[in-house]
Amino acid sequence: MSAPFRVSRRVDFVDTDMAGILHFSNYFRYMEFAEVAFLRARGLSVSMTWGGEKLGFPRVSATCDFLHPLRFEDVVDIEVRVERIGCKSVTYVFDFLHEERLVAKGRLSAVCCRMRSEARELEAIEIPDDIRARLLDRTEIA
Amino acid sequence: MSAPFRVSRRVDFVDTDMAGILHFSNYFRYMEFAEVAFLRARGLSVSMTWGGEKLGFPRVSATCDFLHPLRFEDVVDIEVRVERIGCKSVTYVFDFLHEERLVAKGRLSAVCCRMRSEARELEAIEIPDDIRARLLDRTEIA
Amino acid sequence: MSAPFRVSRRVDFVDTDMAGILHFSNYFRYMEFAEVAFLRARGLSVSMTWGGEKLGFPRVSATCDFLHPLRFEDVVDIEVRVERIGCKSVTYVFDFLHEERLVAKGRLSAVCCRMRSEARELEAIEIPDDIRARLLDRTEIA
Amino acid sequence: MSAPFRVSRRVDFVDTDMAGILHFSNYFRYMEFAEVAFLRARGLSVSMTWGGEKLGFPRVSATCDFLHPLRFEDVVDIEVRVERIGCKSVTYVFDFLHEERLVAKGRLSAVCCRMRSEARELEAIEIPDDIRARLLDRTEIA
Repeated sequence: MSAPFRVSRRVDFVDTDMAGILHFSNYFRYMEFAEVAFLRARGLSVSMTWGGEKLGFPRVSATCDFLHPLRFEDVVDIEVRVERIGCKSVTYVFDFLHEERLVAKGRLSAVCCRMRSEARELEAIEIPDDIRARLLDRTEIA
Repeated sequence: MSAPFRVSRRVDFVDTDMAGILHFSNYFRYMEFAEVAFLRARGLSVSMTWGGEKLGFPRVSATCDFLHPLRFEDVVDIEVRVERIGCKSVTYVFDFLHEERLVAKGRLSAVCCRMRSEARELEAIEIPDDIRARLLDRTEIA
Repeated sequence: MSAPFRVSRRVDFVDTDMAGILHFSNYFRYMEFAEVAFLRARGLSVSMTWGGEKLGFPRVSATCDFLHPLRFEDVVDIEVRVERIGCKSVTYVFDFLHEERLVAKGRLSAVCCRMRSEARELEAIEIPDDIRARLLDRTEIA
Repeated sequence: MSAPFRVSRRVDFVDTDMAGILHFSNYFRYMEFAEVAFLRARGLSVSMTWGGEKLGFPRVSATCDFLHPLRFEDVVDIEVRVERIGCKSVTYVFDFLHEERLVAKGRLSAVCCRMRSEARELEAIEIPDDIRARLLDRTEIA
């Protein structure tokens, strides 16, 4: 078993709400932050030029369970794991930890798409082999 | 069967991303917008003084499936339904419609809490009867 | 003298911060909301196809003075006026009103640009005459 | 002359807009990020308990000039300087640098306030001497 990829960030003031806690919508921003860092560590991105084409990974599903509130200036560690890679999609799971206690669990599914600014709809494509190899790679060895 | 509660809003420029579409995290902001409007129509709120106490409805779970992208200046209609009211929690489902086509489906679960700014943890309480009655009310007759 | 263009919106829960007030950064989002509505009323936009080209109005300057705090569910009226139209730029001023009291004053300057996704830098161009006419038009008669 | 306080962050995907650049409103979020880091390095915060009271530094004015666009994954260095400390307020200036080129300049003025959740208005107070000393301190020696 391999260690998950881990990044941390501190809760920004602007991300709190009048209840004094991190607003639930911002967990999804923080998940993306972790997803992007995970991809960058593999030479990938959620929006990139690959083989001469613009590829992206728009999300088709997002979910989060909020177990304990986070507050301004809390440092949150986010662990990323690839849960599943399908033909065209990849699913990540995220553990949010505060002082090593699990405070939230999330999941994102993203689909590999050819990005064309003119097109109204997104065009899903098979994940290219070299991208797939990178997605799988360090999830096992990192 | 009753008609669902419906609100609409237009996609803001700031809510788009470099892929040219509504960023997925903003669907959760839009869900909250619809939830708050739904509650306001019943004389309720996600943060209110009730019986001399500060009550709130922090979310414990949020999920969304994104079926078709939304773009800048698209008008999106959001339909809200109460899916379930438990002892301490309420679950809403949301249909996002663009020109009457379903483009996203979401769900939020919120727990009735006594809000104390000093407390690190939230304190869940039973939903007061008069709030419960209002939550149930127009979901059936509106 | 003409009446200014006016739009209103209600302060979203997500836009508050732990101080219980509308976070200062969101006044800039609300200004853009008013700017976009103002342009739309003239058949324009901050991002549009015009004469076969993609034109945009990225901002080169933004400022806001915050006089009184706004809170969750407050209805804020935003008045927009064109303060100045130069060769390539336009400057708007915004009055934020709550129950007819001035609570904030803002200003945005935007430059007419040819938008090319490949280019690292933005390319400023003269505001086309027909756009200029629309910007001037209803500011005087509306 | 002393070196300014410097922090850096990477442009998040969610902070871009459909023009492919960092949305102008997010520069104000990034300024706050730098302001909070600056204060934290001095044992202060924009929201804190001090001498048994809740103090905060809500902003009364914010401005930014945008010289060159920033894009997804750009690393931006933000330099913070205290420009002026008055009786009740403090003004910071911010230089945004990308690869050592100045890409934006901002300014925030914040007022020291006693924070009372019940009060509709904020209550400005004189900046306590020990806070003032910390604000001045490392701006000269850091």
